[in-house]
Amino acid sequence: MPQSIPADSVGIITPQVATFDEPLKLRSGKTLQSYQLVYESYGTLNSDKSNAILICHALSGDHHAAGFHSLDDKKPGWWDACIGPGKVIDTNKFFVLCLNNLGGCHGSTGPTTLNPDTQKPYGSDFPMVRVRDWVESQARLADNLGIEKFAAVIGGSLGGMQALRWSIQYPERLHHAVVIASAPKLSAQNIAFNEVARNAIIKDPEFHDGHFLAKGVIPKTGLIQARMLAHLTYLSDDGLGEKFGRTMKNQEVNYNYAPEFQIESYLHYQGEKFSTTFDANTYLLMTKALDYFDPAQYTDHDLTQCLSVAQCKFLVVSFTTDWRFSPERSEEIVDALVAADKDVSYARIESEKGHDAFLLPIPRYIKLFGAYMTRITQELNL
Amino acid sequence: MPQSIPADSVGIITPQVATFDEPLKLRSGKTLQSYQLVYESYGTLNSDKSNAILICHALSGDHHAAGFHSLDDKKPGWWDACIGPGKVIDTNKFFVLCLNNLGGCHGSTGPTTLNPDTQKPYGSDFPMVRVRDWVESQARLADNLGIEKFAAVIGGSLGGMQALRWSIQYPERLHHAVVIASAPKLSAQNIAFNEVARNAIIKDPEFHDGHFLAKGVIPKTGLIQARMLAHLTYLSDDGLGEKFGRTMKNQEVNYNYAPEFQIESYLHYQGEKFSTTFDANTYLLMTKALDYFDPAQYTDHDLTQCLSVAQCKFLVVSFTTDWRFSPERSEEIVDALVAADKDVSYARIESEKGHDAFLLPIPRYIKLFGAYMTRITQELNL
Repeated sequence: MPQSIPADSVGIITPQVATFDEPLKLRSGKTLQSYQLVYESYGTLNSDKSNAILICHALSGDHHAAGFHSLDDKKPGWWDACIGPGKVIDTNKFFVLCLNNLGGCHGSTGPTTLNPDTQKPYGSDFPMVRVRDWVESQARLADNLGIEKFAAVIGGSLGGMQALRWSIQYPERLHHAVVIASAPKLSAQNIAFNEVARNAIIKDPEFHDGHFLAKGVIPKTGLIQARMLAHLTYLSDDGLGEKFGRTMKNQEVNYNYAPEFQIESYLHYQGEKFSTTFDANTYLLMTKALDYFDPAQYTDHDLTQCLSVAQCKFLVVSFTTDWRFSPERSEEIVDALVAADKDVSYARIESEKGHDAFLLPIPRYIKLFGAYMTRITQELNL
Repeated sequence: MPQSIPADSVGIITPQVATFDEPLKLRSGKTLQSYQLVYESYGTLNSDKSNAILICHALSGDHHAAGFHSLDDKKPGWWDACIGPGKVIDTNKFFVLCLNNLGGCHGSTGPTTLNPDTQKPYGSDFPMVRVRDWVESQARLADNLGIEKFAAVIGGSLGGMQALRWSIQYPERLHHAVVIASAPKLSAQNIAFNEVARNAIIKDPEFHDGHFLAKGVIPKTGLIQARMLAHLTYLSDDGLGEKFGRTMKNQEVNYNYAPEFQIESYLHYQGEKFSTTFDANTYLLMTKALDYFDPAQYTDHDLTQCLSVAQCKFLVVSFTTDWRFSPERSEEIVDALVAADKDVSYARIESEKGHDAFLLPIPRYIKLFGAYMTRITQELNL
């Protein structure tokens, strides 16, 4: 529990809900007749609505990016390190918007929502959504709030893919795209890690073809297994070595299969925690959205041509020990943007924190990201 | 089926079984009263028994390193690329010995063996074995065959750890140690991958605390999951990209959770195949042997001091894209050997094949490894 709200926090935040009754035709061909999006905002939208920032979340993220829901909250939102008064994304200047993506499990319409046709949770009947569907639904939320053009669309990992998609799907609706620890498409290895995680969930006897909620159970074992694996891949060998090394829980070797190195306990703890807060179907569909993302497939696999329609400026950031989305993957984006004659800044940040680095207050990252955001305020006279 | 046995094959091989009635006290404190080791040999032991090579297998390996068991065999032994007449480990010169390690599931005493006390399979009652226990049992097999000193002890991955352990446990019993794609101990990341794989097996409802055979079932789902993950980590991002990329099974996107990228089908196939031939308890205990291996823990974590007792010469080999046991891990061994004033050759081989490279006929690797083996024949007048 925070003794008191820190001065650089956005404070106590109440999520909002927006309801959409206009049907949304998805890339898969299916249609959602109506849906809700839960979102939070920090800072004040100015009179000409020119200071709005959209934050796009990653696989396990949600709309709660900053601040606290109550004084009892043990932890602030997932990107509190970067969002707040005087912080990198300065809420004294910007109106910051973050929503739970469609198909999520934290308040937006998704697999845990009651299907109006059956009055049971959608479960695996919830249609698969793709990054472009998220961008479409985010644009509709912007419409609702009267935001014609974002000062910036910002995201890390899967969130970075959304920012990239925004730049080609609604080129006239953003001034800047900030694409952090991301990639223009998954590699075979990326897809494979997703599939191994999915397999753990789908093969859990409590998965029941995705209709576990209707049976009053969850595929907890599979979710734990999936998260243990994914979490491990978000960290680097060096970072794990520094944090855990070969430190054991006890002095003596167990000679049994209980966790005995501290890294083992840590992963079990992370898996257990995740399994109590995240929906298995949401996990599955988010990983498929990742797998499918490949905007250059529509321009004959030419990323430069794909990005040529973009009108915004770009900041691309990568982290040296991120092996899920390595710097080379960010540099593919940068190279394509340069070839397409776009305004792009790029930073490859030294860090031993792996993919998770994008969430952390690494000094050079914060300084550089902050300088870029300041440039935006100057450019837009905010 | 081979149309005919290739000229450079060791031909049709019949495994042998050695029975040991002298109790083996294990590092864990437990004792095996008696046990069997299944082994194969290729080439002819010379009269002074100076031409013997011991091959140590890795996690999923066994005693069948070369040749065929019958003309119907579709594939030869696991290291046939390197063992045979005129090959790197030349059976015209050497007598090559390879055994299934204690605790294995291919004929040596292990979890699938009947426990003489209960007349049921040992299952998880089979005691955990450590690398030093394997070395001890391998030395006893050498005693049985009258081999006092090996020309070389050779292994890749976990097999390399056995070769390294030989050099300090029986320094007077080998002329050379060949340590390929190995490490002086696992990192936190290595241990974590093992634990995630173990968790998949242990949480399979068909695991039954390791006594699944007594119930007539196997934890197939968990074994598949474990192998899919492990197999993935033995390959490199680049190698997977080259072999599979984002190639899909069908032209159109599935929008369901059936495997749709070829890499997914490939992993499922590998997992399925493994689950029909490998025992889950063996998998668990082999991964624990890996986790526990850390010979320098007995010399205050000083690897140089640990290796100072070695009397043999060393060849250490690593592969550039092996991220399970990276070149840096091999170089820790090399640096310690140099500091301990040992005779060590080292090669870092360019390859996009990841950890699996050590099994493959990569030209520079084969040439260099072959040259080293030739040096042994000259040195020992074979």
